[in-house]
Amino acid sequence: MWYDNRVTQGLRIQYPIIQAGMAGGITTPELVATVSNAGGLGTLGAGYMSPEHMRADIRKIKQLTTKPFGVNLFIPEIPDMSDKEIAKANEWLQPVRETLGLPEKPEVEKPTASLFQEQIDIIIEENVPVCSFTFGIPSKETVQRLKMREIVVIGTATSVKEAIVNEENGMDMVVVQGSEAGGHRGTFMGSFEQAMIGTMALVPQTVDHVTIPVIAAGGIMDGRGILAAMVLGAQAVQMGTAFVTSLESGAQNPHKEAILTSSEDQLVVTSTFSGKPARGIRNAFITRMAKHEKELPPYPIQNTLTKAIRSEAAKQNRPEWMSLWCGQNPRLSKPLPAGELIADLVAQVEQLIKSSRKGWES
Amino acid sequence: MWYDNRVTQGLRIQYPIIQAGMAGGITTPELVATVSNAGGLGTLGAGYMSPEHMRADIRKIKQLTTKPFGVNLFIPEIPDMSDKEIAKANEWLQPVRETLGLPEKPEVEKPTASLFQEQIDIIIEENVPVCSFTFGIPSKETVQRLKMREIVVIGTATSVKEAIVNEENGMDMVVVQGSEAGGHRGTFMGSFEQAMIGTMALVPQTVDHVTIPVIAAGGIMDGRGILAAMVLGAQAVQMGTAFVTSLESGAQNPHKEAILTSSEDQLVVTSTFSGKPARGIRNAFITRMAKHEKELPPYPIQNTLTKAIRSEAAKQNRPEWMSLWCGQNPRLSKPLPAGELIADLVAQVEQLIKSSRKGWES
Repeated sequence: MWYDNRVTQGLRIQYPIIQAGMAGGITTPELVATVSNAGGLGTLGAGYMSPEHMRADIRKIKQLTTKPFGVNLFIPEIPDMSDKEIAKANEWLQPVRETLGLPEKPEVEKPTASLFQEQIDIIIEENVPVCSFTFGIPSKETVQRLKMREIVVIGTATSVKEAIVNEENGMDMVVVQGSEAGGHRGTFMGSFEQAMIGTMALVPQTVDHVTIPVIAAGGIMDGRGILAAMVLGAQAVQMGTAFVTSLESGAQNPHKEAILTSSEDQLVVTSTFSGKPARGIRNAFITRMAKHEKELPPYPIQNTLTKAIRSEAAKQNRPEWMSLWCGQNPRLSKPLPAGELIADLVAQVEQLIKSSRKGWES
Repeated sequence: MWYDNRVTQGLRIQYPIIQAGMAGGITTPELVATVSNAGGLGTLGAGYMSPEHMRADIRKIKQLTTKPFGVNLFIPEIPDMSDKEIAKANEWLQPVRETLGLPEKPEVEKPTASLFQEQIDIIIEENVPVCSFTFGIPSKETVQRLKMREIVVIGTATSVKEAIVNEENGMDMVVVQGSEAGGHRGTFMGSFEQAMIGTMALVPQTVDHVTIPVIAAGGIMDGRGILAAMVLGAQAVQMGTAFVTSLESGAQNPHKEAILTSSEDQLVVTSTFSGKPARGIRNAFITRMAKHEKELPPYPIQNTLTKAIRSEAAKQNRPEWMSLWCGQNPRLSKPLPAGELIADLVAQVEQLIKSSRKGWES
């Protein structure tokens, strides 16, 4: 069958559909468990999570499903902190804070690598079946520790070179993230601009250069996208935006609404929210901060500085100041329960296979 | 059969494979005729051609094939000329001219719309079967004149909105150009950045919003890309880069060589050569001119200013000063005779259909 391959076998799931491990509260335990129960792989986006929060969510997921699921982690980045840079950014952000009635400048927590180590410990202690990584490659020791427990490890690449490095470092599978993708660019080698490669070009070139299975991401929103990705040589797809608007998603309502009503030409890649390039819907925040983009503090510092703005804006239902992450295919988004979405996707693929067989060979 | 659809019927060709009408001497009459003789649609890139040159090439094509072929034209753009802007650009270009031993500053011809009208006259007089357009939409009168002669008209779009406008203005089919594509961006509404949409996202969204057949372009280089585009809902593909390296292509050898040896992360969209954004392989010219990019004269003036540099660099085999247009899939390029390339592509698609049938349904 179309879904019987090395990814579904390796992950012990039915359909080669992975729900992306989006950070920021989108991937509720309900969403993750629903996707897994429907035959895909749900993924908890634990990138920014505290150890306590992450452990609690994993335990909730286990209560809701007996099927395999994944947890996505961010490889830590520890940039130099410049007080001057932070002061300047705060100055630029101040008018937005005032608009939202936010009283104070935020405390900047110094990023550390210890959070990541604690997260890895929890993955192992909780015996999470699948662990995926974004923004780099974990150390050999970490990979070994996970693989000794038979935890499947999945990396993220935005170029052929990055995919090869993922394979060389022991990843069992690799997600290739095309330029269409919503949210943060996973690029970890060279500039992100060099790695803005469309899914149509990135998938076949990568498939030709690695032996581990390739999972396609970026612009995939329906059965056509899933089957096209598999024709290009991918063995599964990872979908983010399609699940943001699902019923079980924890995305704020203004975020869901913005995706459901936007079009492909409203999207932009911006570093203004977090200090790292990410694709979202153009709004007042992005436009206002664009001119400062190259002087903002690096990720994750800028992310901390804008955190209160983003969450307060969501509370006040003011999408113009929120990070509205979204891929380039918003016209195909639907507000469905995640289980129905998966069933729909599978039915679409099977219908396409059936109609293709007739059209292609008669 | 997989190739029997509204595009192949409308164009009276066997396979839904269109060789893009690339300008600048790449689409020799031999290339165009070879593609058409092999069952695809060859296209003469007549964008910059004088009426005499264009007519001569069309007559040569007719001597070489009795099959349908196309001619691609550029909708004229008449920007304001600023002597100061031109003088500044010439100043920045002067060191490159010196490096190449070029003695003088070029004359700038004032762009006119009359060339386009003469080109249309020739299309009609020579009874060219297919006429495609880039950079905009021809006038209603022009469309009517062509359609009265049963000349098939094909437009170019880089967003859903542009595709809809193409349909509303009488185009019989529309090429949607994904962000992966090599050469000039066809964007004619809004900024080009807004319309850098990956093929994987652009095709299905467009197919859902127009009734004319959609031809996918951008990152398609082999049978996987062709079949994937058709799964997404396209009824044909247009391929550029794949034909640049073909035996019959008139591309300069350093250009062919650069494509055959480059990778997906070396490509960049630049306005430095022509004043209009286009995708090519990063080289010294692009890097050197990048800082002036926003102050350069608009298309087609900058194109005239750099013309001598580009052709002299080709003569001296110095790719660092040439425009090395190329899509995001260069690792799949091959130096084949164009007829063999088409036969290969068809065989790949048919092999994929055969193996998919087994894999998807057993």
